[in-house]
This record gives sequence, C-alpha cells and structure tokens, in this order.
Amino acid sequence: MTRSSALLTDHYELTMLQAALAAGTADRRAVFELFPRRLPEGRRYGVVAGVDRALDAIEAFRFDDEVLAVLREGGVVDEPTLEWLAAYRFSGDVWGYAEGEVYLPHSPLMVVESTFAEAVLLETVLLSIYNHDSAIASAASRMTLVAGDRPCIEMGSRRTHEEAAVAAARAAYVAGFASSSNLAARQRHGVPTAGTSAHSFTLLHDSEADAFRAQVDSLGRGTTLLVDTYDVAEAVRLGVEVAGDELGAVRIDSGDLGVLAHQVRAQLDSLGATGTRIVVTSDLDEFAIASLANAPVDAYGVGTQLVTGSGHPTCGFVYKLVAREGADGRLAPVAKKSHDKVSVGGRKYALRRRTPGGVAEAEVVGIGQAPTDDGDDRALLVPLVRDGEVVGREPLAAARDRHTAARAELPLAAQQMSRGEPCIPTRIEG
Amino acid sequence: MTRSSALLTDHYELTMLQAALAAGTADRRAVFELFPRRLPEGRRYGVVAGVDRALDAIEAFRFDDEVLAVLREGGVVDEPTLEWLAAYRFSGDVWGYAEGEVYLPHSPLMVVESTFAEAVLLETVLLSIYNHDSAIASAASRMTLVAGDRPCIEMGSRRTHEEAAVAAARAAYVAGFASSSNLAARQRHGVPTAGTSAHSFTLLHDSEADAFRAQVDSLGRGTTLLVDTYDVAEAVRLGVEVAGDELGAVRIDSGDLGVLAHQVRAQLDSLGATGTRIVVTSDLDEFAIASLANAPVDAYGVGTQLVTGSGHPTCGFVYKLVAREGADGRLAPVAKKSHDKVSVGGRKYALRRRTPGGVAEAEVVGIGQAPTDDGDDRALLVPLVRDGEVVGREPLAAARDRHTAARAELPLAAQQMSRGEPCIPTRIEG
Repeated sequence: MTRSSALLTDHYELTMLQAALAAGTADRRAVFELFPRRLPEGRRYGVVAGVDRALDAIEAFRFDDEVLAVLREGGVVDEPTLEWLAAYRFSGDVWGYAEGEVYLPHSPLMVVESTFAEAVLLETVLLSIYNHDSAIASAASRMTLVAGDRPCIEMGSRRTHEEAAVAAARAAYVAGFASSSNLAARQRHGVPTAGTSAHSFTLLHDSEADAFRAQVDSLGRGTTLLVDTYDVAEAVRLGVEVAGDELGAVRIDSGDLGVLAHQVRAQLDSLGATGTRIVVTSDLDEFAIASLANAPVDAYGVGTQLVTGSGHPTCGFVYKLVAREGADGRLAPVAKKSHDKVSVGGRKYALRRRTPGGVAEAEVVGIGQAPTDDGDDRALLVPLVRDGEVVGREPLAAARDRHTAARAELPLAAQQMSRGEPCIPTRIEG
Repeated sequence: MTRSSALLTDHYELTMLQAALAAGTADRRAVFELFPRRLPEGRRYGVVAGVDRALDAIEAFRFDDEVLAVLREGGVVDEPTLEWLAAYRFSGDVWGYAEGEVYLPHSPLMVVESTFAEAVLLETVLLSIYNHDSAIASAASRMTLVAGDRPCIEMGSRRTHEEAAVAAARAAYVAGFASSSNLAARQRHGVPTAGTSAHSFTLLHDSEADAFRAQVDSLGRGTTLLVDTYDVAEAVRLGVEVAGDELGAVRIDSGDLGVLAHQVRAQLDSLGATGTRIVVTSDLDEFAIASLANAPVDAYGVGTQLVTGSGHPTCGFVYKLVAREGADGRLAPVAKKSHDKVSVGGRKYALRRRTPGGVAEAEVVGIGQAPTDDGDDRALLVPLVRDGEVVGREPLAAARDRHTAARAELPLAAQQMSRGEPCIPTRIEG
C-alpha cells in the first residue's frame, strides 16, 4: 500500500492551492471538519469505518516524480505549486471518532487542523474512504443486529468495484460480519474468509452425485453443499448419503428461503443430520434477514445489498472549513451562508451523553472546551495524527469490539428496522 | 497496474478448483457467459464499460509467492492446488461486446472459453469490474443524452470508494462526459480533468473580494468562480468587477438552480459578460438535468448520482457456466434448473438487428452459427483474448466514439427518461 494516494484527488484542490500560495494565504492555520449533515433517510444510527485506511492514505499522500509529471504535463498547476507539492507531507493534527464507533447527524467524525494548504488537499481522498466504508458498515450493522447470534457472511465482491469490494469486506467485519468471501480482505486486513462451491461446480460434473462426491472427497464432510441446482429435496438426500450425518452445511440460494429452510431442516433431522447447518443466500438485506428470524437458518450470506449500502451506497459526509486564521493572525470560525444547511463554525468537541445506567441519550457537540465529565459522558474524539505522525492506528479487532460496545449502549430505538428518527438526538452546544 | 489481481476473488473459486483438480474434472473445456438477466427497473438500455480494465485484470491474474503464501498460511487450498496456481496463466479465448456498446437483457457481454479451472477463477474480478463500470456508464449515458450539447463534468469522487472513483470517471467519459475532477483518471486513463475552487477557498480569505482576486490573479480571467458562498447576486457583480467581461464562468452549487440560472444570466448580460458561462452543480441526476433544459445553463457538474449509478449502483450481471465438456469428451450445454430465471445453455452469437434505415429494432441472441447477415445486422461479439493473449485493447476514445454511435442507432424510446421497457426487445433464437 505504498502507492501514492495523492492523485485520488479532485483537480480543484490543487488549483485552490496554487491560488492560495500566490495570494499568501495558503499557510493560514485552518480547521476542517468531516461530518454528516444527516443520516440516510429512516436510519437510526450510522457506523464509522475506514479510519485506518484513511490514515494509510494520509501517509501515502506524497507527490513523487511520476505524480508531479502528470500534473506538469497536464498543466494542472504552475511550477511554484509543483515545487511546494514535491515537499508535501502532512504535518498537522487529526482527531476523530474511532473506527467502529456509532455516529449521529453532525457528529464531527474527523477534525483536521493544519495549514489550509496541507489540509485542503486531503479532502477528496478522506471523503471517498469515509463515505464508502461507513456506508457499508452502517448497512452491515443493521444486518448483524437483526441476525442476532447467527453469523453473517459477506459475499458481495462481484457486485461492486473490485477494490471497493475489499474495503466493503473490511467494513462489514468491523460491523460484526463473521467472515467474507474476499481473499484480498484476508491478505490485507486479516478478515476471515469462507466459501465452498457454486452452481457451476455442480454443472461441471456429469451428475449432482459426482459433484457432491468430488467436493466432499476434497473439502471434507464438514463442507457446505449447494443444494438448489436441480431439486432441493433430492440434493439434501444425496448430500447426506455422500457425507453422512457429519455434513457441515447445506446452502440454499433461491426460492422461498423461509419455507425451504423449514423443509430442509425437517429432512435433515429425519436423516439424522441434526448437526448439519443451513446457510441461506439470495439477495438478502436486513429486512429479509429479519423475516427469517423464526426460520431454522444457521447463517446468512449477504451480497449485493451489503456492498451497495442497502439502498444508501454513500453517506453524504462533507469536509468543511470551520475555522481559519485571518489577516489578524487569529483563528476565527467561518461558515458558508446557507438556508437549508446547518453549518457551525469552529473546532468541536463531541460526547456521547449516557444515563447513569449507561444508555446513550444524546450526541453532544459543541465548540471550545467540553463540559466537565460527570462520569456518564463518553468523549468521542481520539487523536489520530499528531504533528504529522499517525498515532491512531489499531488492530481491526479493536474496531470490531468497539462497534459491539457502542451499539449495545444505544437505546432500544436503534434496533427498529422501520424508518424513523435517529435513535438519540444531537445537541449542538456553545 | 502490475499488482496481482488474483486475490480480488471469492474464496469459493479456489475451493472449487481444488475439488475439481482432485476429481479430474478441472481441465474439462468450459464456456462461461457474463450477462444481465434484465435491465435495472425502468431503464431503456445499458452501456458496457470496464472492458479494458477487465483485460488488465486477466493479464494481472497471477499467483506470485506473496499471494500463494496468503493461501497457504490461511489453509485456503491444498498443496497440489497451490502448485497449479503458481503456474496459472489464462490461456483461453474471450469474446465480448466492445466497450461503449449498448446492451439489453440477455446480451452475452462476455464469453469466456477455456478449461473450467482457468475460466472459473476469473468470475469474481470480471463481474466486479463489469458490474461497477457498466452501472456508472449506464447512468452517465442517460445524463449526457438529456444534457444534449451541454457538457457534463464528473465530480463524484468523494462520494464513492477512492478507487471506484477513478473507474467511475473513466466510465462516465466513455458515456459522453466531457471531463472529470479526478486526477488519477487523468493519470491512468487520460480522462480530461477540470476544476477551480470550493467554498473553503472563499472562506479562507478575509472577504469574497480577496478570494476572487486571488483566484483570478492565479488562474486567469477564464476561471470559474463559485458564487453561492454568501449572496449570489453580489458575488456575480464582484466576479465581473474582478475579472471583467472575460470571466470564464460562474458556478452555482445550491438553491433553485433553474431560477438562479435565469437571474444570473440576466445579471451577467446586463454587466456585459455575455460570454461568461453558467455551471450548475448540486445533487444533479438525469431528471434534474432534464428539468434544466430550458434554463440558461452551460454545463452540468454531476457527483453523487453519477458515481452511485443514479439509483442502480450495480448491474446485476452474472457469470454462468453455459457449456462444458462431459465425460464423453463432447461440449454440452448446461443450465441450472430455475423457475424464475431464464438461463440458456451453450455458446452464443449476438447481433443488433437494424431496419434498412439503420435504426436498431432487436437484440438477437442465439446458440451456434449466426444467421447470414443481410447487411442490416451488426455483429456484437468481438475477440478480446485469443489463446491467452489480449487482442481487444483499444484507446478510450474508441470506446467513447462507439458509445455515441451505438446510442444514436437506438429508437426514440431510448431517450425516454420515464420508467419503461427496454427500447428494443431481446430475441433468443436457436
């Protein structure tokens, strides 16, 4: 991952830099904030993901000769700007919500403090990562919430951009998915992977019996057999005949999953394969998972709806200049005049206010000094980069654990799949 | 782009390989087909994109030591399979619709013929690329269609995964977008890029006048000034004061774009800036673009709705085994038994049937030999890979030109933005 991230950037970030350098304003101290104006319609909470990937992108944001040549040949910016870029290295501070944390409208997910020039350049790539990964994690969290103790398996790689697929597998894991089909997610992020066979494997062979025998001989009796290529009942019978009652699982990928699950469970039990699990896959989303709560299903495989954010493929986070040094040398809040958009200038604090019983009751966001903690508040901003050095990296397991804890803290309204308001209000103070 | 693409793959492709190798069926000749079962709801046609990227992925699909180590340490497959993978290099043939071509339900977008083992491994990465890039191109084509002669500028990088953003810029360009904000798309694919400034640039300065002067001094009078940070009318006045009537353009990013465009046009004209163009940006999609047809708008900047496929972020293409060699050594069509899914086994031909006047009237897909061309049919499958060598690569401009021509050939129904049936029917023959 040492490839430069510097051109994963909008053209205008560089032309703004050029103009600010020429005007002598590029080095003004500046605070940018990355935040959501709102949740996707009807959602009760969101989930922060992509933090570690964003830290990688900040470190890899360097303009090497190859990158500079692209900008020079394209006439994107002038020579003084190219010289400045050649020496670029982010030297400021970044705070943010830790990965796996829950967010609400106006949560200051990331606060970047540096010079205008250093901070503005990071806008596009930070938004890309946060908007994508958090959209996936937010959808994934609803799925794992309704799935309860039944594991969810991420298998949507084929339905999204090949690199987005890797990030989606990672984000889903943060939000409680048990595993993924994506091998690059294993390689890069240590996400557990799983998978056995597809319909093509059955069709390759001269009979379903040949296919099942080939699979069980090679992958063992604990494998998962796909049973809906021809006739489900016949395939289940055949699967137990081939693998015995040690057959690990059967997978159903089409039809009325609830009805089939009941039929297959009864058949498996009647054949003595009481330990054989049932995995269902077929355009599942959180609503389909919820509808299968009473069916004898042991695991859910989720594809398209996971990687497309279950109707909300992007979070709509924005990255706004909220304060900057003026001609007088003082840091002053700034905001675009806006009729329909709430923008609050200045550097923020953020707390999750909780009842004495530990249930979240409000997202408190303010400017300046945070109120004294009465023991029930939980501070949400952690240091991610200090003087240009990344300090906020952590193992993926920590993010996953954090999500479990942060979600458990939410009031019951968070568990409603119906469309509604955020499960706790955001209070803007100060 | 020499990084291995081999792990952008689902786990089960490799376990199927292992089982087939052990069973002696891995080397059976096989034909896989990548195709859409349907168009996204209400769409009249789709656009093929990602072909060149897919060819890159096929070439880069190699299992080097680093990749093999991941599979070995994870226990994903056994040693004989790892040995086979170490020597993997696709040696088969691929035909497909050329990039920029229009597609309809059941168009055989890609036909992969090789051994089962060689071809099955490519499933995930080919689908990822085609499903993403074609979703973007399909949305983009509707936008450029309704925009007519007014250029569309792609600026959605921040709202999608950072690598998907690069592919989205490329796909939008294939489908007629004039330029993109994404600098990596310039670097990797030669897509023209554009951009000037954001609200943060205005807010950085002590006054809007300071900001406009800084921008015009550095970027020239032909630049585009963003005029909605504070008061649009005041900013337009100021912009012309600073840049004179040579001011290139003004950009409006909020509010009622139609009303504002009329007001700003009148104001610019009254100030003598009759050549200053008006660019609008703000959550545009094809419907918003259509609604602005009568407004004095000169260019559209499109972000979120472009990179998320305007409601359809994935195409739902599938990659199915349609024929394979049996124990008898003969290639035979195969298909999953299915109630609700039309699957037709066997290797396909595909033609765009046209009237003598050159208007498309049907997508003709069949098995075996294509009917004799009467001069009005257009064959759609071109060779992409022959004996493992990529033969179908072409400049991006060729794909862009092809799209213009293929879209122009469609009947008028293709231009309807309302939800409806595909603009021409698909006829399955033979």
